[in-house]
Amino acid sequence: MSDITRVALDAMGGDNAPGEIIRGAVEAVKQRSDIKVLLTGQEALLKKTLSEYTYPREQIEIVNASEVIETADPPVMAIRRKKDSSIVVAMNLVKNGEADAFVSAGSSGAILVGGQVLVGRIKGVERPPLAPLIPTAKGVSLLIDCGANVDARPSHLVQFAKMGSIYMENIIGKKNPTVGIVNIGAEEEKGNALVKETFPLLKECKDINFVGSVEARDIPAGAVDVVVCEAFVGNVILKLYEGVGGTLISKVKQGMMGSLRSKIGALLVKPALKSTLKDFDASEYGGAPLLGLNGLVVKTHGSSKAKEVCTSIIQCVTFKEQQINEKIKAVLQVQEEKKEN
Amino acid sequence: MSDITRVALDAMGGDNAPGEIIRGAVEAVKQRSDIKVLLTGQEALLKKTLSEYTYPREQIEIVNASEVIETADPPVMAIRRKKDSSIVVAMNLVKNGEADAFVSAGSSGAILVGGQVLVGRIKGVERPPLAPLIPTAKGVSLLIDCGANVDARPSHLVQFAKMGSIYMENIIGKKNPTVGIVNIGAEEEKGNALVKETFPLLKECKDINFVGSVEARDIPAGAVDVVVCEAFVGNVILKLYEGVGGTLISKVKQGMMGSLRSKIGALLVKPALKSTLKDFDASEYGGAPLLGLNGLVVKTHGSSKAKEVCTSIIQCVTFKEQQINEKIKAVLQVQEEKKEN
Repeated sequence: MSDITRVALDAMGGDNAPGEIIRGAVEAVKQRSDIKVLLTGQEALLKKTLSEYTYPREQIEIVNASEVIETADPPVMAIRRKKDSSIVVAMNLVKNGEADAFVSAGSSGAILVGGQVLVGRIKGVERPPLAPLIPTAKGVSLLIDCGANVDARPSHLVQFAKMGSIYMENIIGKKNPTVGIVNIGAEEEKGNALVKETFPLLKECKDINFVGSVEARDIPAGAVDVVVCEAFVGNVILKLYEGVGGTLISKVKQGMMGSLRSKIGALLVKPALKSTLKDFDASEYGGAPLLGLNGLVVKTHGSSKAKEVCTSIIQCVTFKEQQINEKIKAVLQVQEEKKEN
Repeated sequence: MSDITRVALDAMGGDNAPGEIIRGAVEAVKQRSDIKVLLTGQEALLKKTLSEYTYPREQIEIVNASEVIETADPPVMAIRRKKDSSIVVAMNLVKNGEADAFVSAGSSGAILVGGQVLVGRIKGVERPPLAPLIPTAKGVSLLIDCGANVDARPSHLVQFAKMGSIYMENIIGKKNPTVGIVNIGAEEEKGNALVKETFPLLKECKDINFVGSVEARDIPAGAVDVVVCEAFVGNVILKLYEGVGGTLISKVKQGMMGSLRSKIGALLVKPALKSTLKDFDASEYGGAPLLGLNGLVVKTHGSSKAKEVCTSIIQCVTFKEQQINEKIKAVLQVQEEKKEN
C-alpha cells in the first residue's frame, strides 16, 4: 500500500465552490505531505484559482471535468447522464483505484447514488449508511444512518451498528464505543416494528458494545457514542439539531439586545459564548462518511468553507491508515460465516 | 349545554402531586367562576391539602380514589386492574358525562390507554393523536402525533391534519393554520413509504391549508402551524427539542462562567436571557390534548407545577366553548359521506 493518500476532490460542488474548496485543498497539502489531492472540475477555472496560492505543486493535480451536477438535478439521472461532471469523474478515479477517497460538498443525492452505483458496495454490505458526527455535551457521537435510503430493515441497522462502532473506535479514537438504538422509551418492549425487531439482534452482537435504547432527549447529552436509526429518523435528528440550535441562538442574541444593560453584558460575554457555540457547530467536525463502499466517500456540508474541506481531506488519511474498510470486511465476513453455519 | 366546564383532575399523578396539582386547581377556580374541578385521589390527603387554601368551596369537589397508577406500571394492566385509581375514577367521570374533561400529570401510557379504552373514540376517529404545542421563533406550532401508537397508516395522518387544524384555529386562534408533513426534503417525491402515500391525500383535502413537506430544520423557525407526523417521529422531535435546548443552555451558562469578564457580562444579560429562554420552554404552554375522544383528555408534563396545571384546566373551557369535538365530528362526517359516494 502506498504511503500517500490520494483524495479526489469535487472542486465544483457546494455553495462556495470552487474558491473555498480549492483553499481547503491547499491548506490540507500544506499541513500534510502524505496527501495528494486530485481536483476535478473545469480545468481553466481551477488553474486560475490555484495560481493564487503557493503550495507544494506535486501534491495537487487537476483532472478536467466539463460538467457540473446541480443540487436541483434528479440524482439518478444526473449520475447517468453527466458522465463528465466533477462528481462522476472523481468517483471513477476511486472506482479505478486512482484515488483512495472522494470528498464533495455537492448534491447529497448525487453523492449517495454515485457512491453505490460507481464506487460500489463492499461485498456483504446491504446498504451504505451516511454517518455524520454530531456535537454533544461530552464531545461527539456518530449518527448512523442519515442517508437517502429510507424504510430500512433490521439487518441494515445491525450493519450500521457494526460499521459505526469501527468508525468511532478507529477514526475518533473512542475505545469500545457504546451503541444505542433510537427509541421512544427505554424499555425493550417499546418502539415501532423496526426497532422491536432490531433490538434483540443488536443484543446478540458480540462485536459491539450495545447498551439498549436511547431516547432523543438524551442524544445531545452524549448518552451513547453510536446512535443507530433508520435514515428518515436520522435525517429528522440531524436537521432538528441544526434548527433548534439556530433558533435558540438567534433568540439568545435577540434577547441580549433588548435593553442597554443587557447590550453591555452581551459585549462582555460574546467571546466566551462564541467559543461555546463553536463546540456545538456541526461544521467543525468535518464531513460525513458514506460507509461500506469500495473506497471512502465523504459528504461535507453544502455551505462548507476551506476549514471543513481541509478537515475532511485529512480524515481520509486516518481512514486509510486505520484500514477501516478492511475492518468492515472482517466483521461482515464473521457475519456471513455465521449465516452459513 | 351547561355554562360550567367540569374538569376531572388526577390529584395523584406527576412528580409534584398532590401539592402542586391542588394548588393549580385552586388558582384555576380563583381565576374563573365557570369551572368546576373534580379532584380524584385519596380523600383524607386531598382534604388536608385543600384545607390550606381559601377558594370558592363549591368549585372544587373531591371524588375518592384509593389507588394510584405508578409510571412503572404497565399501562394496559394498570387501567384494567386499578379500577379505584385516580386516573380510572376520573376517566369514568368523563365517560359517564359527569365531567367534560380530564387533566393528568400521571403515567403517559396509562392516560393514552385509558383515553381510548374508557373515554372512547369519537365515531370515525381511527386513532386519537397526542398533540403538544412546541415553541417556535414565531410562537407555537402543534406537533401531531406524539402518542404511543406507532406505525401509523396514511389515513391516520390525514385525520391528524384535520383535527390539528381545528385545534390550532379554535383553541390557539390561528386563522387558516398551515399544515406540513415532516419529510426529509421539500420535494413531493421524497420521503419514506408512509409520507409518499400520505402526501397526495393531504393535497386533496379541501378543509385544511396543506403547504407540503416540512424539513425538521424549519420546524423551530415556525415554518408551519400544524406539524403532521407519525408518533415515533413526533416523539423524537419533541424529546430532541428538549434535549438540544437543555444541553445548549447549560453550555451557554458554562461558557459565561469561564472568565471574570464574561461572569460580569452574565449578570447583566441574565434577566433578558431568562425571559427569552422562557419563551422556548414547552411547559409554558399547558398540557397536550389527546384529540378525537368523547371528551377532552389532557396530558401535562410529569414535572408540572401549579401554573401548568392551572393553564391546562383553563384550556378545557376553551375546548368546550369552541365545541372542538362537534367540529371534529362534522369534518369526519364529510369524510365518511365522501367514502360512501
